[in-house]
Amino acid sequence: MAPSPMQVNGDISVVKSPVMGRLATVYSDVQNSRLDHSLPLPKVIKNRFDVVDGPASSAAGNPDEIAKLFPCLYGQPSALLVPGDGSKQASEQKLKIGVVLSGGQAPGGHNVISGIFDYLQEHCKGTTLYGFKGGPAGIMKCKYVTLTSEYIYPYRNQGGFDMICSGRDKIETQEQFKQAQETALKLDLDGIVVIGGDDSNTNACLLAENFRRNNLKTRVIGCPKTIDGDLKCKEVPTSFGFDTACKIYAEMIGNVMTDARSTGKYYHFVRLMGRAASHITLECALQTHPNITLIGEEVASKKETLKNVTNYIADVICKRGELGYSYGVILIPEGLIDFIPEVQQLIAELNEVLAHETVDEGGLWKQKLTTQSLQLFELLPTAIQEQLMLERDPHGNVQVAKIETEKMLIEMVEAELEQRKKAGNYKAHFQGQSHFFGYEGRCGLPSMFDATYCYALGYGAGALLHSGKTGLISSVGNLAAPVEEWTVGGTALTSLMDVERRHGKFKPVIKKAMVELEAAPFKSFASMREEWAVTNQYISPGPIQFVGPESDKLNHTLMLELGVHA
Amino acid sequence: MAPSPMQVNGDISVVKSPVMGRLATVYSDVQNSRLDHSLPLPKVIKNRFDVVDGPASSAAGNPDEIAKLFPCLYGQPSALLVPGDGSKQASEQKLKIGVVLSGGQAPGGHNVISGIFDYLQEHCKGTTLYGFKGGPAGIMKCKYVTLTSEYIYPYRNQGGFDMICSGRDKIETQEQFKQAQETALKLDLDGIVVIGGDDSNTNACLLAENFRRNNLKTRVIGCPKTIDGDLKCKEVPTSFGFDTACKIYAEMIGNVMTDARSTGKYYHFVRLMGRAASHITLECALQTHPNITLIGEEVASKKETLKNVTNYIADVICKRGELGYSYGVILIPEGLIDFIPEVQQLIAELNEVLAHETVDEGGLWKQKLTTQSLQLFELLPTAIQEQLMLERDPHGNVQVAKIETEKMLIEMVEAELEQRKKAGNYKAHFQGQSHFFGYEGRCGLPSMFDATYCYALGYGAGALLHSGKTGLISSVGNLAAPVEEWTVGGTALTSLMDVERRHGKFKPVIKKAMVELEAAPFKSFASMREEWAVTNQYISPGPIQFVGPESDKLNHTLMLELGVHA
Repeated sequence: MAPSPMQVNGDISVVKSPVMGRLATVYSDVQNSRLDHSLPLPKVIKNRFDVVDGPASSAAGNPDEIAKLFPCLYGQPSALLVPGDGSKQASEQKLKIGVVLSGGQAPGGHNVISGIFDYLQEHCKGTTLYGFKGGPAGIMKCKYVTLTSEYIYPYRNQGGFDMICSGRDKIETQEQFKQAQETALKLDLDGIVVIGGDDSNTNACLLAENFRRNNLKTRVIGCPKTIDGDLKCKEVPTSFGFDTACKIYAEMIGNVMTDARSTGKYYHFVRLMGRAASHITLECALQTHPNITLIGEEVASKKETLKNVTNYIADVICKRGELGYSYGVILIPEGLIDFIPEVQQLIAELNEVLAHETVDEGGLWKQKLTTQSLQLFELLPTAIQEQLMLERDPHGNVQVAKIETEKMLIEMVEAELEQRKKAGNYKAHFQGQSHFFGYEGRCGLPSMFDATYCYALGYGAGALLHSGKTGLISSVGNLAAPVEEWTVGGTALTSLMDVERRHGKFKPVIKKAMVELEAAPFKSFASMREEWAVTNQYISPGPIQFVGPESDKLNHTLMLELGVHA
Repeated sequence: MAPSPMQVNGDISVVKSPVMGRLATVYSDVQNSRLDHSLPLPKVIKNRFDVVDGPASSAAGNPDEIAKLFPCLYGQPSALLVPGDGSKQASEQKLKIGVVLSGGQAPGGHNVISGIFDYLQEHCKGTTLYGFKGGPAGIMKCKYVTLTSEYIYPYRNQGGFDMICSGRDKIETQEQFKQAQETALKLDLDGIVVIGGDDSNTNACLLAENFRRNNLKTRVIGCPKTIDGDLKCKEVPTSFGFDTACKIYAEMIGNVMTDARSTGKYYHFVRLMGRAASHITLECALQTHPNITLIGEEVASKKETLKNVTNYIADVICKRGELGYSYGVILIPEGLIDFIPEVQQLIAELNEVLAHETVDEGGLWKQKLTTQSLQLFELLPTAIQEQLMLERDPHGNVQVAKIETEKMLIEMVEAELEQRKKAGNYKAHFQGQSHFFGYEGRCGLPSMFDATYCYALGYGAGALLHSGKTGLISSVGNLAAPVEEWTVGGTALTSLMDVERRHGKFKPVIKKAMVELEAAPFKSFASMREEWAVTNQYISPGPIQFVGPESDKLNHTLMLELGVHA
């Protein structure tokens, strides 16, 4: 059997019949084999359970402000599933539940939805599950599809978000909250599951608060999604998608490493996803042992300059040159330059200066820059200078996101090495190759871990809604143990929050989990990187396997954070 | 057990002890699991066999000239292993054999060497196998390592060429042939196996001829290697590495497709390896069903212009726009522009004009171009114009290889669509994303097919040398059948050759196998592409699996060429 994923970007008002969907050529063998892979569940949720509340919660910061922003929800306890008589489940209500995917793709999203669906099928027969289309906008516009067993089947254990697609809209104005209320009332919703990152879960909590305040019965439960890995806390050990994405990038990095060693003549500069935090880069480093790895949080903490970073790379290349190596692999987080204070300063000045000055050929406009920023500007490769001056967004601001950091660093390192060569301090040959690994990792077939974890997250979200909870994020823990023993519960979203002051107002935010320089993953990396720099301990993780003992391994970050020896 | 690959780019004169190599952290789980995977062999070579000769051979073209170039070897029959009394093998000679990797990496090279080694261990106990280091230069400079069981073990079923590394030198001058002879005499070599592509195998045959002519006992056997898939003929159904590389690229393309469909707003332009022939692009298209695929050979055959190609892409995008799709995936072979006659003409003119004219701001130099080339030049995006004018090789020639075709096409398609928008013929939104998949595929862990095929090629090469053959290329056939029933033999290298006239002299060349527009793979693709263009029948092949029924599938090109229904 090889069903075709339903087309959702086109017209999904007519759901294809299962027969139409079963075109023999549409799924690959591996996709097909995953389709019927049955997922294990934690014991606690497979059997009868009760939901017990923990102690009252606080906030990650500024609890008073959070309490003011969430008067209905603030302080509510987290919930944990424990073996019990299952009195709640026995009630067999017929519920009406909605689910929405919010933000960028992450492998496993379809399994969260499958988990919710299967929970409801099992415990609340006759329940209706609506999939809101195209992200939160689907809630506001009441655009949805009714998810049935036939509709969901082709997406089981498959990558992508195309079952209902996603979107980046937010529900934040009064008008938008009103639209959401209208949808909730129109569909008579008992609950909504919001699958998203930090912003989307903040938004989910605001929605939960809003519904509660307006006496709607609609509950809201969040699920932690982001390949960047920066949505996590004690109760939520990891966000889904991180495991798969890192394994895909690590496969590619491993292959490039083998190529580098075989060819012996290129330095590969690999930029990886992760604008805000460098978890992906760190995890890929732990999986593959590159010669050089830049971690944004460390660069920021040490207040590095771009020149420092360039010199660090050049130093390692020189040392390797002396050992006879003219090749290597360097990992760079996408957000690197956002972590360099002087670059931020330069960009701020450019935004200011270029808004008022015309760029003259002679370069007189540059006199408006501070000495430090001018020096930095002159240090940049011409192509990057032009990019900074010319490519600006509709507000006239420099588009930092468009800067190809890996290419910039290649040019800067090349210039530095040429100077060292002239001074007689470098004799080897340097040739850089640039790579950006991004889209390839967001939509892969979920790894065994992500497939199972997501299914449990979704199944747990169903249980939380069923037991009347709102404003919680689905939390599956004890991940170092066999799946059987995983814990299932929900954490108060307000307990993850702090406030930021924006436009004179306090805004609630779930703080992004950054790479902690004192935590096990970074320390493990830091203890080995000097050896990796000069020896070549490259590891090639190879393609993700779905069968065999190799398929069950957790990623290094998670293992180290859980205290399991990697 | 997790042995470390020996470091060959550094100092390999001291081979690390097996104990030192077994650092627990150095191999990934998947690498380890592959290490002890035992490879099946064709029945004919597992049991006692005889080597029988076929009829006298001719050449692929200009047999008279080939006969003159290879007076000793021309016309020799191909050889086939058949069940027999194994009288040859019974002789138990102790041989001295060398092996060399030539040209770019391809997954499976290490297994060819393992196959040769294991054959010799099994049939010629006490034989010495030398690995020449860094390609053919290793033969000329007599740089080698003695390959032992311990040395080879960590490379079994692993990607890369780092066991002995490769190189792109050729043995072609009289001086170089003399150096090769000296090495052959010094090491008392009975044979050399050259693992390489079309050029390297031509070179192998010249070496075989030279040794024979000079009455050296050293025989030479070739092995067909290239991920590009353009070294093949009736007896050599495929070159190794093509299967793995295409599967890796197809995994990534499939992921990008799922992303495209989930996001719904990008056209992904994916450039793939294959400068001379478009086999990789065709195979990836058959595996993944992209909306648009450009095949160089078809572009050349139809004498397409760059404007035609741009319009073709824009037409499909417009049609998709009408159907409500603002996304898609487009595959482009690296060598595309080499197939467009007018681009070749422009580049020839630029090489000529820029050698004599200075590029003036006013653009007067352009008057030296023909009208057609000037028009084409004006059509090109500014960045490409600059690249053509400024980035030239040491001979002053335009560096065609450096042009990022996928980025060029994005800009040209964007410009075309903007015009259509103004004319009211296009309403949707176009946003291009560029990708180049190259290095990631050359050094992956070999697929089950490549691992097994390479081992058989190497084992067969050992048998051919053992039975006194020279000037043959190891040929393993009947690949649609189970491995047990594969055929093993050798094909006269001269039979694959034609001549080219260079600098007034005939040079022998093994003709590259191009994509045949009348053969099954292209016809299969052509019969489906119109449907793929407007519907979205994307397939996500997923990561290569090493266990389970999915792991044993042949690639589509090979299946279609063998007449097996894909």
